Amino acid sequence: MQDEIQITKYEPKKRQGLIVIITGNGKGKTTSAMGMALRGCGHNLKTTIVQFMKGDLYSGEWDGVERLAPLVSLHHTGKGFCGIEGNPFPHSEHRKNAQDALKLIKKIIKETPPDTLILDEVNNALELKLVDLEQVMEIVKLRPEQMHLILTGRDAHPDLIALADTVSEVKEIKHAYRKDIEPQPGIDF
Amino acid sequence: MQDEIQITKYEPKKRQGLIVIITGNGKGKTTSAMGMALRGCGHNLKTTIVQFMKGDLYSGEWDGVERLAPLVSLHHTGKGFCGIEGNPFPHSEHRKNAQDALKLIKKIIKETPPDTLILDEVNNALELKLVDLEQVMEIVKLRPEQMHLILTGRDAHPDLIALADTVSEVKEIKHAYRKDIEPQPGIDF
Repeated sequence: MQDEIQITKYEPKKRQGLIVIITGNGKGKTTSAMGMALRGCGHNLKTTIVQFMKGDLYSGEWDGVERLAPLVSLHHTGKGFCGIEGNPFPHSEHRKNAQDALKLIKKIIKETPPDTLILDEVNNALELKLVDLEQVMEIVKLRPEQMHLILTGRDAHPDLIALADTVSEVKEIKHAYRKDIEPQPGIDF
Repeated sequence: MQDEIQITKYEPKKRQGLIVIITGNGKGKTTSAMGMALRGCGHNLKTTIVQFMKGDLYSGEWDGVERLAPLVSLHHTGKGFCGIEGNPFPHSEHRKNAQDALKLIKKIIKETPPDTLILDEVNNALELKLVDLEQVMEIVKLRPEQMHLILTGRDAHPDLIALADTVSEVKEIKHAYRKDIEPQPGIDF
């Protein structure tokens, strides 16, 4: 179907690092960030993903991104979602983990800066006081001007929304779990 | 940071195919679908992506998914966005293309059914009358019960929303192009 089509490869006059926030209560925030990592591969862009609060429950993207190595790498730094039923760790331990993640992020920015840095669930981590606003702001300032920074998770902080370039709110219209459908691999994790 | 964590690999008692719709006017619909394709790879799930109305402008996921072959494959079947400024093709030609895409989709379902079928921009194609509601409904019915079907694009039809399991509306809070920032590779295409 493509034989008559001329494919244009757009090149912006000015490349610039964007701050993108994907927030809201609906399904599709982390997957949207993963999709940007995948999209970046087509432009030979290097992406590093640091996941907050994830680490106790296997998610398909962990092995999925292995197929995109060495362009894409992922670090899951957490002990599961802080404060949800069944999670055995106290707030202090989740905070320690998130603080270690911040150190890792600073090291990545300094030593092996990617084209795109994804901080998955950082909004959530901030809302839950595992990291502080000033600390996220510090990372925003530390990053090279050309580096894209993608922040995902519910309850994005208004001050971060204010300085972001692109912000989407993913709203739940409906979700399978409300019909008691269990999480399905490939879709939900 | 992960040394003390026990990783659980969740397995639902019942696997079932979900209908997922990602709609709305904000950034992150196609990338969310791509992220699910990537996530599926971690579960060894096969994903086929058919893109409507895309084909004239290079997007990074075209080569990105090549790295996920043979688990993931992508067909871009269109001649660009119907009705937008600069697109030279008449509605009839866009419709013919979309109709050919429907034939391809039926062939895929019959001959090489994936675990997950992504119809990217199909909501948009339906709204623009490049395909008809009955035709999309036919595909919904044709698919095996275990197959996930992901429909993306603005203006999802209410009848499709009614029968979907999970629906997210991606709302634009802000977008870089409103500040006259050009589309950036890896983020916007």
